Amino acid sequence: MERSKALEIVKEHLTEHRYKHTVGVMETAIKLSDKYGGDTKKAETAAIFHDYAKFRPKEEMIEIIKEQDMKKDLLLYNGELWHAPAGAYLVQKEAGINDPEILDAIRYHTSGRKGMSLLDKIIFVADYIEPGRHFPGVEEARKLAEKNLDEALILALKNTIVFLLKKNQAVYPDTIETYNDLVLNKDNRT
Amino acid sequence: MERSKALEIVKEHLTEHRYKHTVGVMETAIKLSDKYGGDTKKAETAAIFHDYAKFRPKEEMIEIIKEQDMKKDLLLYNGELWHAPAGAYLVQKEAGINDPEILDAIRYHTSGRKGMSLLDKIIFVADYIEPGRHFPGVEEARKLAEKNLDEALILALKNTIVFLLKKNQAVYPDTIETYNDLVLNKDNRT
Repeated sequence: MERSKALEIVKEHLTEHRYKHTVGVMETAIKLSDKYGGDTKKAETAAIFHDYAKFRPKEEMIEIIKEQDMKKDLLLYNGELWHAPAGAYLVQKEAGINDPEILDAIRYHTSGRKGMSLLDKIIFVADYIEPGRHFPGVEEARKLAEKNLDEALILALKNTIVFLLKKNQAVYPDTIETYNDLVLNKDNRT
Repeated sequence: MERSKALEIVKEHLTEHRYKHTVGVMETAIKLSDKYGGDTKKAETAAIFHDYAKFRPKEEMIEIIKEQDMKKDLLLYNGELWHAPAGAYLVQKEAGINDPEILDAIRYHTSGRKGMSLLDKIIFVADYIEPGRHFPGVEEARKLAEKNLDEALILALKNTIVFLLKKNQAVYPDTIETYNDLVLNKDNRT
């Protein structure tokens, strides 16, 4: 899909603030994709649509997760996770995006997954470091992303987990599994 | 088993420092058990034997985990976890401790488990806060343990997970599962 058309579609579903974030993620994902040898067009499309379902009513997302045979345990955890799998479903249904790699990158952009693809990693990291993000540690993540995508991803996952722990919130097991997968495979490489 | 006999047995297997720690865990576990209505004699015995296998050679612990049909994924994670399940096995075999509740409390004192028993919790928390422990946050855990055993346990698990994350080490999934179990059930109660 053409960039302008894709942006036009998502704009309707997002707040002004979230639309700006989306454009930031798109620009960052394109840069990362160029840098790490990914498919830049797929990165662009996945980035544009990654938050497509962000402002859907919680009830609609719960319904989708239940009816579309998604992992039910998601519903035990933070509602902020839900727009990713719900978004992958809605983007296919409503915007006609059918590429499974793009849909996966949208589906796993909040939780991560074991064995993340390059595109998954690019969207996850771009979402974390896009220029509109301002929080302690973001600069370190930006610098790491210049050097090593996996290291930036590990930092993003780690910070997310620590953030949840500090708020006494549950941590979705897939997120820890993603972190462990990256850390254990790194240990095996060294 | 009589306290003096049990202490005599473990003393042979521990360094002076670790023996002092064990006595501290015993005293703390007895206090917690009295406070929270546990079986104080079981708490005493589990505490005395909790680190029984701490100084066994790694190879012996790996052998036990492999041969005794324990969870093999343990071997992917920090070796500091292994003396707990290996200890439960050795304490039964070598010291004749057969009480399943005591063996479980020893078995899960490093990782935790979903649905921890009162005795499991007492040993886990006593191990974390006994008077010989000195680290940032231990005072907060001691104070919490005076008021609410689950809150103290959540803090101990959280701190352990953050400690591992800061060192870029993998986090054993059962530990996160234990934390999630406590946090999610607390949320359901309130």
